[in-house]
Amino acid sequence: MILQLKKNTDLKYVQAIADTYDAIIIKKDDTYVLVTPSRIKSVDEKYQLHIERTTVCESDIQLASRSYIPTTREVKIGEAIIGGKSRNCMVIIGPCGVESEEQLEQTASLINECGLKTLRAGAFKPRTSPYTFRGMALDGLKLLAKMRDKYGFSIITEVRDSTQVDDVIAYADVIQIGAKAMYDHGILDKCGKTNKPILLKRGFGATLQEFVQASEFILSGGNENVLLCERGIRTFETKSRFTLDLCGVAYLKEYTNLPIILDPSHAMGYAYGVPDLARACMAMDVEGLLIEVHPDPSVAKSDASQQLNHDQFRQLFKTLKPIASAINRTIV
Amino acid sequence: MILQLKKNTDLKYVQAIADTYDAIIIKKDDTYVLVTPSRIKSVDEKYQLHIERTTVCESDIQLASRSYIPTTREVKIGEAIIGGKSRNCMVIIGPCGVESEEQLEQTASLINECGLKTLRAGAFKPRTSPYTFRGMALDGLKLLAKMRDKYGFSIITEVRDSTQVDDVIAYADVIQIGAKAMYDHGILDKCGKTNKPILLKRGFGATLQEFVQASEFILSGGNENVLLCERGIRTFETKSRFTLDLCGVAYLKEYTNLPIILDPSHAMGYAYGVPDLARACMAMDVEGLLIEVHPDPSVAKSDASQQLNHDQFRQLFKTLKPIASAINRTIV
Amino acid sequence: MILQLKKNTDLKYVQAIADTYDAIIIKKDDTYVLVTPSRIKSVDEKYQLHIERTTVCESDIQLASRSYIPTTREVKIGEAIIGGKSRNCMVIIGPCGVESEEQLEQTASLINECGLKTLRAGAFKPRTSPYTFRGMALDGLKLLAKMRDKYGFSIITEVRDSTQVDDVIAYADVIQIGAKAMYDHGILDKCGKTNKPILLKRGFGATLQEFVQASEFILSGGNENVLLCERGIRTFETKSRFTLDLCGVAYLKEYTNLPIILDPSHAMGYAYGVPDLARACMAMDVEGLLIEVHPDPSVAKSDASQQLNHDQFRQLFKTLKPIASAINRTIV
Amino acid sequence: MILQLKKNTDLKYVQAIADTYDAIIIKKDDTYVLVTPSRIKSVDEKYQLHIERTTVCESDIQLASRSYIPTTREVKIGEAIIGGKSRNCMVIIGPCGVESEEQLEQTASLINECGLKTLRAGAFKPRTSPYTFRGMALDGLKLLAKMRDKYGFSIITEVRDSTQVDDVIAYADVIQIGAKAMYDHGILDKCGKTNKPILLKRGFGATLQEFVQASEFILSGGNENVLLCERGIRTFETKSRFTLDLCGVAYLKEYTNLPIILDPSHAMGYAYGVPDLARACMAMDVEGLLIEVHPDPSVAKSDASQQLNHDQFRQLFKTLKPIASAINRTIV
Repeated sequence: MILQLKKNTDLKYVQAIADTYDAIIIKKDDTYVLVTPSRIKSVDEKYQLHIERTTVCESDIQLASRSYIPTTREVKIGEAIIGGKSRNCMVIIGPCGVESEEQLEQTASLINECGLKTLRAGAFKPRTSPYTFRGMALDGLKLLAKMRDKYGFSIITEVRDSTQVDDVIAYADVIQIGAKAMYDHGILDKCGKTNKPILLKRGFGATLQEFVQASEFILSGGNENVLLCERGIRTFETKSRFTLDLCGVAYLKEYTNLPIILDPSHAMGYAYGVPDLARACMAMDVEGLLIEVHPDPSVAKSDASQQLNHDQFRQLFKTLKPIASAINRTIV
Repeated sequence: MILQLKKNTDLKYVQAIADTYDAIIIKKDDTYVLVTPSRIKSVDEKYQLHIERTTVCESDIQLASRSYIPTTREVKIGEAIIGGKSRNCMVIIGPCGVESEEQLEQTASLINECGLKTLRAGAFKPRTSPYTFRGMALDGLKLLAKMRDKYGFSIITEVRDSTQVDDVIAYADVIQIGAKAMYDHGILDKCGKTNKPILLKRGFGATLQEFVQASEFILSGGNENVLLCERGIRTFETKSRFTLDLCGVAYLKEYTNLPIILDPSHAMGYAYGVPDLARACMAMDVEGLLIEVHPDPSVAKSDASQQLNHDQFRQLFKTLKPIASAINRTIV
Repeated sequence: MILQLKKNTDLKYVQAIADTYDAIIIKKDDTYVLVTPSRIKSVDEKYQLHIERTTVCESDIQLASRSYIPTTREVKIGEAIIGGKSRNCMVIIGPCGVESEEQLEQTASLINECGLKTLRAGAFKPRTSPYTFRGMALDGLKLLAKMRDKYGFSIITEVRDSTQVDDVIAYADVIQIGAKAMYDHGILDKCGKTNKPILLKRGFGATLQEFVQASEFILSGGNENVLLCERGIRTFETKSRFTLDLCGVAYLKEYTNLPIILDPSHAMGYAYGVPDLARACMAMDVEGLLIEVHPDPSVAKSDASQQLNHDQFRQLFKTLKPIASAINRTIV
Repeated sequence: MILQLKKNTDLKYVQAIADTYDAIIIKKDDTYVLVTPSRIKSVDEKYQLHIERTTVCESDIQLASRSYIPTTREVKIGEAIIGGKSRNCMVIIGPCGVESEEQLEQTASLINECGLKTLRAGAFKPRTSPYTFRGMALDGLKLLAKMRDKYGFSIITEVRDSTQVDDVIAYADVIQIGAKAMYDHGILDKCGKTNKPILLKRGFGATLQEFVQASEFILSGGNENVLLCERGIRTFETKSRFTLDLCGVAYLKEYTNLPIILDPSHAMGYAYGVPDLARACMAMDVEGLLIEVHPDPSVAKSDASQQLNHDQFRQLFKTLKPIASAINRTIV
């Protein structure tokens, strides 16, 4: 249950209501918003005079639900707007991992050539084996920051576990919470305390309910800039690396108010399928796409099989535009 | 391994090679094609003089593989062509089940209004409970045939189990093998003996390997007109009825030579998600879409929640055209 | 809703109630039992005088539910009883497929040596590729019947699709409906019309709800002798062939009244894991185990990797007995 | 590839080999063990004189594989031994979360009454919603330590994310890495640097390969005391909370050298199924069971539905003993 209190409600009442109903307190300008567990469906008569607006939620999808805010939230990334009244679709590209300055310069050329504005690459790589490349860490973050300073891109990079969350928050423009970290309270809580946009990836074993509830940790911490990223779930099918859940995306669009970014590269796991899937993602009418590109995927230190080379991306990009037009979206 | 024998090879050699390598014999005009289990990777020197062309296959995806036929097979449905050199995408609509002549007449109006050519509806409904509507059976088939005779539509209808396969083959223009019947040898074998197009739906628990291998039962029976239909697989996510596997579609497009039809209605299970998914399916660049419509879904005897009403379909249809244009497809 | 009518209710009332509530009529001795769709929760006052007992069911799990019959049903297989008041656990062994008389004779020796009474083997093999062994068909059934006549075993064999259901019903003592045929109305309906026990295997993509509802097709046809067999479901894990769902078995034991048979061989797919799993299955306190054995698995024409050889089975059998004793079960 | 170097190999050669092959260096007493990525299958001739023993591994399951150490590793928990030559099975009980000292005292009574030695309870609860109880945190750890001091129990408690890993390592006897934290490098790396036993739970969306590879992070950090805990995976079946993967356990027993602990409570999610499953887990012949008990589950602040009350546990415990005897295990 979400209780939006009247402006200038005395803090002692705010606290009393919160204590009574186990609510989390969010302060926004001079207004308090209290979020109780969803099992609470009403509040006592005596508190009504302090309450401006009440939203009863069926489940713990509360701040993210369209019953609380019916329209898609607006999020600003650098100079670009997605969500809200815009019909923008942000195409975000870059390699899986930062490997060298030269590599990032090549990516930067491609981004500029296509008129895009956002660069993604990982400095801390979450891996499933200790015997593989774990990323350039802080040096990687610094290289990314250099690209931002030089070209004006917004930088999206991933936090792998709570030990580096402060560094990533400090260096990135958009903090990506990776699929393996989706349940990490340490990260979610810290991301709730910044105002930078958070790109929250769905855990590949996470239900939509859990995915959106993970965003509630951030939203209830006070950060309203959350993007939901579907990147494939794990199913019995192994011909592709994961299974991109576009039915799930239809659900998210219907029931939640957060902008949606789709990542066909991680879902498919193989470059050959990325162009068709990227076009399908565009046709889903969402706020952004995340596509992995690498100057030479064959030598990539991670995710070699799924990254498009730059020519492949150029071909794809040409065909994304007419689809965007068909659904009245503008690529940014 | 596929062995295409030289024209006019004497039948005794055909039989000898088939016996030696456990091969299935397919006769096509005056040519024999033998298909051995894929574990056989070579044939004896002495048989080489009878062999025109040899295709070694990695797995039992053989006749359906692009290593055997590199281009998408052409299939004729009524007057329409899909696959081959055409860039057609067939939009197939109709209710889940035949319920009455009046209902089918209303569907027919919609099909004519949209300039489409194909009507789908089930007469034998595969259900998961004995206490629900099982379809109009033979009476349903007869009503469908009446629509064909009156309007010239091609009729697609489903065979539920081997007991009615002969009737369905007799009445339909395209025989649909439903998801629950995908492994049914009785059906697959009979469908291999007709020349009518077969729309084979993927079992919701079937891997892509098993799905394509099911088509091999039909192809190796001699019927070359097989369409693969992805309609959602079962995963841990329950907010949608199934999970549409577009990564799997990318795989099928890359490795198999059969036209592909996508069914967003059964995958989603809820009408609200069908328009976005249908557009995404169109953007996947495939040979057809299957979309459930019903004059009044609220009174439908099966699948009530997922069928679009006619106005919803009209809205959707308008937006499918620009996407088709964007990928250079023509809706038929 | 299950309506047990009073003895000797006039058939015209039986029919009237059935028509009014879309009910299936089951006649048992001189009593009628009507089963309506579960959405119907009450019947009109005027029919009450004909009704002996009413069971309202939450879902279409009705005749199989413990709210209808609270104790496990008794089923007789040959001279042996399982379920009911017995504490018997039937250990059923045999090869995947009938391959030759010699093979079956060797199996027969093992069965006799262990003091068991039931032989299983498939004559019609449901396969996922047309290029593999499909079974000895009718010749296989005849060999099985020969073993019954010679040794007095009960014979369990599988029906693959509706085309051979009559033959299998004629030859077998227990008809096995395989996992791939679980949804087959043609088979389920015919099995409802015999009185022979039916061993219904869970489809590997089927929910427990669908699994038990499949048994309702048979039960509502009038055959009360249904055994539920869990044999592994398909999940994302591929190190084993399937995932044996013992949590599901706990559910079935709690909510349904049908005897349960477990098949660790098909679940695991590898002989090395079968002994531990078979002991775990015994400890689950169920009515039977199905274990694949073959005189020489390395030459088996199907399922070679998962069949135990006879020595491996002897070792296992010795260890099953103390577990059976620990839970107060007797192996038959 | 695992290279066990000769005793007293000069550190400069150790480093040279490690650098050449991207190996992780583990020092154990006066011996170095190097672990390279598994794609490396041989080392140069010139390094052979420093190498005592070489183990080539098929995948990045290396230190945990039976090809490296063929027998199950021995781990000491308090005074108790599991694995190694022992045939002990440790039965570990306790509530889901620490709620109060009184609650823990009641659990302590039950543990003492049953002659057990280990207490589990969570102080930091990983939750899927921010609006639910997150645990008593440090106060919870202190209460657990108090129980250890008072009764001599070994304490098992969970680390939720890297922000509390130091505290948990300091207070617990066995550090539990929860299912949602299985991929957390921050935790895994720190657990590799302690010598306390680590109970690593399988992520419910994690393959067995990833699960065992997560243990490699700890083992390659130098900590040899890792226990693998299967607690259910996520599948399409929703009647139970998760699906206990005993086929996976058979795989782990065959291919890995780590002791195995099974958790039927989290897998099932409902108390009614726990006794049967616990007996099946015991029959799987593993090194331990983890069973949730609560003095009054109806008031538990988390996992209320799956915890046994103390009487239910007493009943279960009585029946676990004969199963343990049947497989020659001793409960500790």
